[in-house]
Amino acid sequence: MLTEMHAHILRLINQSGPLSRMELVRQLGVSKATMSALAADLIDRGMLAEGEVVYGAGRPSVRLELAASSAFFIGVSLASAPFIVRLTDLHGSVVGEATMGAGTDPDDVAGAIARVVDEIVVSAGVDRERLAGIGIAIPGLVDAEAGTCIRSTLLGWRDVAIGPMIAQATGLPAFVENDANALALGEHLFGSLRGSDACAVISIGDGIGCGLIINGELHRGARGGAGEIAHSTIELNGLPCKCGKRGCLDTLASAKSIANFAREAGLPENLAALDEAADHGSQDAIAILHRAGAALGLSVSQLIQTMDPARIVIALSEGPLDGPYTRVIRQTIEANVMSSETRQIDVAMTRLGREAWAVGAASVAAGRGLFRL
Amino acid sequence: MLTEMHAHILRLINQSGPLSRMELVRQLGVSKATMSALAADLIDRGMLAEGEVVYGAGRPSVRLELAASSAFFIGVSLASAPFIVRLTDLHGSVVGEATMGAGTDPDDVAGAIARVVDEIVVSAGVDRERLAGIGIAIPGLVDAEAGTCIRSTLLGWRDVAIGPMIAQATGLPAFVENDANALALGEHLFGSLRGSDACAVISIGDGIGCGLIINGELHRGARGGAGEIAHSTIELNGLPCKCGKRGCLDTLASAKSIANFAREAGLPENLAALDEAADHGSQDAIAILHRAGAALGLSVSQLIQTMDPARIVIALSEGPLDGPYTRVIRQTIEANVMSSETRQIDVAMTRLGREAWAVGAASVAAGRGLFRL
Repeated sequence: MLTEMHAHILRLINQSGPLSRMELVRQLGVSKATMSALAADLIDRGMLAEGEVVYGAGRPSVRLELAASSAFFIGVSLASAPFIVRLTDLHGSVVGEATMGAGTDPDDVAGAIARVVDEIVVSAGVDRERLAGIGIAIPGLVDAEAGTCIRSTLLGWRDVAIGPMIAQATGLPAFVENDANALALGEHLFGSLRGSDACAVISIGDGIGCGLIINGELHRGARGGAGEIAHSTIELNGLPCKCGKRGCLDTLASAKSIANFAREAGLPENLAALDEAADHGSQDAIAILHRAGAALGLSVSQLIQTMDPARIVIALSEGPLDGPYTRVIRQTIEANVMSSETRQIDVAMTRLGREAWAVGAASVAAGRGLFRL
Repeated sequence: MLTEMHAHILRLINQSGPLSRMELVRQLGVSKATMSALAADLIDRGMLAEGEVVYGAGRPSVRLELAASSAFFIGVSLASAPFIVRLTDLHGSVVGEATMGAGTDPDDVAGAIARVVDEIVVSAGVDRERLAGIGIAIPGLVDAEAGTCIRSTLLGWRDVAIGPMIAQATGLPAFVENDANALALGEHLFGSLRGSDACAVISIGDGIGCGLIINGELHRGARGGAGEIAHSTIELNGLPCKCGKRGCLDTLASAKSIANFAREAGLPENLAALDEAADHGSQDAIAILHRAGAALGLSVSQLIQTMDPARIVIALSEGPLDGPYTRVIRQTIEANVMSSETRQIDVAMTRLGREAWAVGAASVAAGRGLFRL
């Protein structure tokens, strides 16, 4: 069993990149002898490897790095059907993939996951003993500690103990997480937000999601409801939303809402074509993209004013990363964040593939199973 | 010197109330022998006292409580002139008070604080040796770690190392904090938010402030800008704000903005009189309070959707706690938070006195100087 101190060392190297024993001594506040013993132990277990040699003032020192193939993680995305499954290593690289055509009955899902786990380790040629856990990204409200899905409209679930069911079916530790949170943790542990203590990932697809990292940890809120900006009111007394309220961000800026507005205006429903129509001067397309981009930019600016994250990633499932839509988003953020903050705020636009949710789910298994986040 | 473990015990008892040695053993994960030694040490130092006896399944056990008079803290509020100073004990009770008529020159402020510290300990009859630190609540952006004020429009300060200056002038550890953060920490350590890991305090006076507690700690954000909801945009392209943007919450809901709207309408400028005019059917008063209350309620609903705090305290410097203004705030929150969250969200309205900022400042000294938050 790894101790809390072992996990702490792995966490530090994950976030900082390779570190020498002396750098670890300074960051952990332990003695050199203790650190030597801990490092030797982790090298024996195959989790750390000696890498680059650093020449400084004193004796040359060797940096310790995470051994990519010492632990593997399964990630399952239940964000949309067919469910996506990915196998990742300790560097967060994808080393195996599968899709899973199951229904949404919890028993069926658990059974199908057990079968796909068996297949994926064989096809990837990975030692099953090195599987450290399985993460499940769920589109809905979860109780991460209990491993239950409190409710998911998309899956039709309410109070489903899916975590324990999957653990039983696979014999692996199973960790359940909200899909937007899984995405954020993936970026934080293995992606562009590595090393950033306060950051946010906003995903725009059929729906809108938001995961927050605070103090290097997922912030889930008191009842798991943090990051629910999709149902934050942007227009008082605005359009009716499926959640029962009015004027939610979701009614204005999700890909689904944009497609609805486009259809009503007789325009193509996908974002790429809308962006192109706007570029060619369609006033209707410009109006739709402005309204949606302004709503999203406004919501992000409010998030920045409230949380003051160091970095924000906006991940788009479709449309150009630098088109009229994203330009309105950027301009609205810049116009609505206090100027001294704007200059430093770092907002990146990235492509959101369907695989990203599964990679995020695998990083949940790494974060909770190995790094003990 | 207190060790990290001593501070941890004091923190736990501060948040939970008196605890027996066995309860502390369970929460800290140390051996009974270690816990006995640590408790004996803290009792020797006069910081803990034996209190209530609890009869349970095994032997009766004694609960350990914080000894109120074992440590004292000075809090200075620079939120408005004349500056308010309070002396508090380890229970957060006020045991001494003073006001300080200094200008805003940093050297003058540090000198005046040194004099007032000398006076207040004498008049309160407190042993100076037991003064554990001094906290300073600053209306502006601070670097809490360096103890500097990055900028404060109200004080006319930019990059002032006020913390080190006060430490030098008084010979006491000095801790600098943003005023809204100090208020939130005060409520968290000694007030109505004790024991709540995720909560927020929103203050409404001439300006609007917001302090966030996440995971039991102040969340300051990447650049100290967290909680800046006053300059969160509520109305796109709304009224011009002194910050350079448009439609900030501050332009709609601060006591100063409400007073401006009232003056323009020929109505009394204070909130109590406006509330009364609205109760007597003044359509202008109703419209002003509705616009302001809806803006504030909307901003709080967005905070709830983003952060999912367990509790929120809205502290008002003037006006009735249950009048037309606060009713609009409450109704707007309820209408704009997703229903499953609303049912549980706990929003309390309280009175914000000028003393509260100084008590908050003293709690910053307790939190950082003693509890090592």
